Amino acid sequence: MTESWVNSAQRIGRDLHLDLTGPGSRRAVLIRALREAVRDGRLAPGTRLPPYRSLAADLGLARNTVADAYAELVAEGWLTARQGSGTHVAERTRPRRTSPPTAPAAPPTTPHGQAAAPPEQPEQPEQPRHNLRQGQPDPASFPRGAWLAAARRALTAAPTEAFGPGDPRGRAELRRALADYLARVRGVRTDPERIVVCSGVAHALRLLFGGQVLRGRLAVEGYGLPFHRALLERAGVRTDPLTVDEHGARTTELARLPRPRAVLLTPAHQFPTGAALGPERRAAAIDWARGSEGLILEDDYDGEFRHDRQPVGALQGLDPDRVVYLGSVSKSLSPAVRLGWLVLPERLVGPVLAAKGEREAWASVLDQLTLAELIESGAYDRHIRRMRLRYRRRRDQLVTALAERTPHLAPTGIAAGLHAVLRLPPGTEAAAYWAAAAQGIALDGLSTFRHPEATGTGPAGLVIGYATPSEHAYPAALAALCGVLRVTVPAPLRGPAAAPDGATRRQSSEHPR
Amino acid sequence: MTESWVNSAQRIGRDLHLDLTGPGSRRAVLIRALREAVRDGRLAPGTRLPPYRSLAADLGLARNTVADAYAELVAEGWLTARQGSGTHVAERTRPRRTSPPTAPAAPPTTPHGQAAAPPEQPEQPEQPRHNLRQGQPDPASFPRGAWLAAARRALTAAPTEAFGPGDPRGRAELRRALADYLARVRGVRTDPERIVVCSGVAHALRLLFGGQVLRGRLAVEGYGLPFHRALLERAGVRTDPLTVDEHGARTTELARLPRPRAVLLTPAHQFPTGAALGPERRAAAIDWARGSEGLILEDDYDGEFRHDRQPVGALQGLDPDRVVYLGSVSKSLSPAVRLGWLVLPERLVGPVLAAKGEREAWASVLDQLTLAELIESGAYDRHIRRMRLRYRRRRDQLVTALAERTPHLAPTGIAAGLHAVLRLPPGTEAAAYWAAAAQGIALDGLSTFRHPEATGTGPAGLVIGYATPSEHAYPAALAALCGVLRVTVPAPLRGPAAAPDGATRRQSSEHPR
Repeated sequence: MTESWVNSAQRIGRDLHLDLTGPGSRRAVLIRALREAVRDGRLAPGTRLPPYRSLAADLGLARNTVADAYAELVAEGWLTARQGSGTHVAERTRPRRTSPPTAPAAPPTTPHGQAAAPPEQPEQPEQPRHNLRQGQPDPASFPRGAWLAAARRALTAAPTEAFGPGDPRGRAELRRALADYLARVRGVRTDPERIVVCSGVAHALRLLFGGQVLRGRLAVEGYGLPFHRALLERAGVRTDPLTVDEHGARTTELARLPRPRAVLLTPAHQFPTGAALGPERRAAAIDWARGSEGLILEDDYDGEFRHDRQPVGALQGLDPDRVVYLGSVSKSLSPAVRLGWLVLPERLVGPVLAAKGEREAWASVLDQLTLAELIESGAYDRHIRRMRLRYRRRRDQLVTALAERTPHLAPTGIAAGLHAVLRLPPGTEAAAYWAAAAQGIALDGLSTFRHPEATGTGPAGLVIGYATPSEHAYPAALAALCGVLRVTVPAPLRGPAAAPDGATRRQSSEHPR
Repeated sequence: MTESWVNSAQRIGRDLHLDLTGPGSRRAVLIRALREAVRDGRLAPGTRLPPYRSLAADLGLARNTVADAYAELVAEGWLTARQGSGTHVAERTRPRRTSPPTAPAAPPTTPHGQAAAPPEQPEQPEQPRHNLRQGQPDPASFPRGAWLAAARRALTAAPTEAFGPGDPRGRAELRRALADYLARVRGVRTDPERIVVCSGVAHALRLLFGGQVLRGRLAVEGYGLPFHRALLERAGVRTDPLTVDEHGARTTELARLPRPRAVLLTPAHQFPTGAALGPERRAAAIDWARGSEGLILEDDYDGEFRHDRQPVGALQGLDPDRVVYLGSVSKSLSPAVRLGWLVLPERLVGPVLAAKGEREAWASVLDQLTLAELIESGAYDRHIRRMRLRYRRRRDQLVTALAERTPHLAPTGIAAGLHAVLRLPPGTEAAAYWAAAAQGIALDGLSTFRHPEATGTGPAGLVIGYATPSEHAYPAALAALCGVLRVTVPAPLRGPAAAPDGATRRQSSEHPR
């Protein structure tokens, strides 16, 4: 960051003082400074912020840097944006309370890569009428009975010491159950001693990057969870994006990046674009890790949910000494059960435990014992099979509804998982997103997931989660979605825009380049 | 830290490179540097470290700084110390796996405040025969039946959205139950909107100091949990100790400290010395907070367990706008249930939630629902009452055993809680500690809890937890303890050393000055 930029930034907004020092990208620094100004009261609730174009000019920053910062802060609930009245400091500056996060679509990019105006944002209803957000399983399907039965067996049988201070590795019962389960279902090669239980994949990333375990730059996929990016940014980790295409992340680019220490991948089902990482790409990732003492972090967030294709085993199985495998029950059971795990190369077990602490300070031991029993009894497998059928049926309903009502738009990334990507003609993402919001449909714009430093122009699109609505609400959600798409993204006069022919629709694995 | 100190430190240990830069006290910096050298393999497993006197001379540091650093790293499992063979890098450099932490007593101090030699440390058995460590409730008393019954009612009645992504404040059911319970039992004044659920008090401290909520120096009690000090040190928080005496922490000293932003207190039962914070001290703390925009952090770790005295209400009730009240179920139920809470002044709710994240990423929602039901149904109160009787009986057994077998030693801090402090004649702490360890008795030396920067000479003593042993094992543990004390701390020829007369024994509130 240049000194002149810092100085000019401090003058903005009627002498508002912004602290623009500290680590991170300009976008990250700006976000942090604005957040702090809101928190301190220097930017009072209701205050109107300068238009992002003016702020960008004042700061000598690219417009999309400022637009992104505004969008991020709206997503976090610090700012609000209202139709026709610009961006304001939120009346209550705290994260929103309702369950679904309400990140707006990032501003669509023009063909020249400049950010267009951030979409004007109507007030989203606190509870969307139709929840098609990605990222969570059907909450109505949580196996309450099976969980309670497992809890009863587990807590009745537990030894007394289970109710004392816990081992930071996690309960041995759970680590044994996971070692067997992950080997059987995901091809993970491990023993219980190399598993560390945690509260979820975000906690796993904090353990790896928040302490002394991993340092240096991290390669990431050009598309991914903004939440993970924000977490890594806060931990001071610089991320460099890999291009994502129809075979997943281009791991061949690892050799060209500025000495990444590790790479974070979603090999089973690239998030959110949907490809399985191709065999050559897998080999390239392993070769890179072996050749450069690098580490692969495998986020297997929905690896159990495949639909049409053969299961794709975990990358970890190729080289357990170079891959950290991360998983959780947040997609398979519920994010309400705060349990996840790291499967580690042996040399990393000590450092991760040192970062976690001397005792189990995080993951409920009662839930750990219950999950172990749920897995050992077979009830966990039964639940996964039941949910796989249900999600596949929902996926099929989505494909059928789109084929009937908007045949010019074909979903991709649908061979696995709990969501689909619907690519749209350039420039239509924001319109489709806000028209959906106006109809009470919550979903995400594809550009929300794009790494800010990804090269080239990202395609327009929507990410449609099909796991969240209840069974009876799902058909109405699909009908509402198709209605919005027919109006905002009408069929072109000459042929379909996204899918060249119907045959690719079901098995399509097309992805943005 | 002076430049010359850094330079000399880098030359030690046969050109071992230690990175002695970074924030914190010299002790903290040295601990961090040694930890890193072990982690990186620069200090290989089994390597013998230079005697602490030599290292202190090499570094130009006080001997007790280096001795403390060694003791801390032994406690954390990085180093080991064996009878007659000095201090070595542990063979497996990871935190120990057994439940009880095994921190050794800190070196006793001589009358001139110099550290004596750190006690030579025999191998502690992995599972002590007699566990008299403070800090945990009786694991055999966990109310499995009541918990399971509450879980069944709570999970059966829970709305579907409970199984979706959670509110970072925690479940409303639990916050409502806690607001009522804490008002009734602890005199806390709050509404559910100012409660944030977390994984325990350590998590609460991380939320307050790890993000953007609190910065600057923190006043702490001159005696406290080394675990909390280490956590704060890692978060870059500089702590300044207040003197602790028979009325708790001398909060009148707050005005003399270098502008503390906040003070961390244990008003109900000073940890571990045992006083209730006196009324004038309470008033002084509140006055300081009001006059200097300071904040009081009230760690009410065992406030429910009083024995002889009237309940002492939470300090928070005096000024809910200046006190952050911290609590958990780790003493009342079990540390296996990873649930705690912050009761916050309204202005801090937003920042704490921002630090916690957009969703509930930590505390099990299933356990939150269950705890809410346990409290609402009255089962939680019944459990507390049962345990209070049980702990009081154990406390009485301890007092009786000591009065019979070692009448020259009287426990203090026994009017409440799950532990007692046994003051010893100067210079006898290490001998008593290690003699106990040799008999398979796990307990803590009083000096372990002393802040490294506390002024003056700390008294010798032992901290005896009476909650952990099972009912049938407790009498044998007491007999073993008394046997050790009779040998290592024999009665003086002229009158008792610690308690001047028998009358003070039961109600004693004497504390180190």
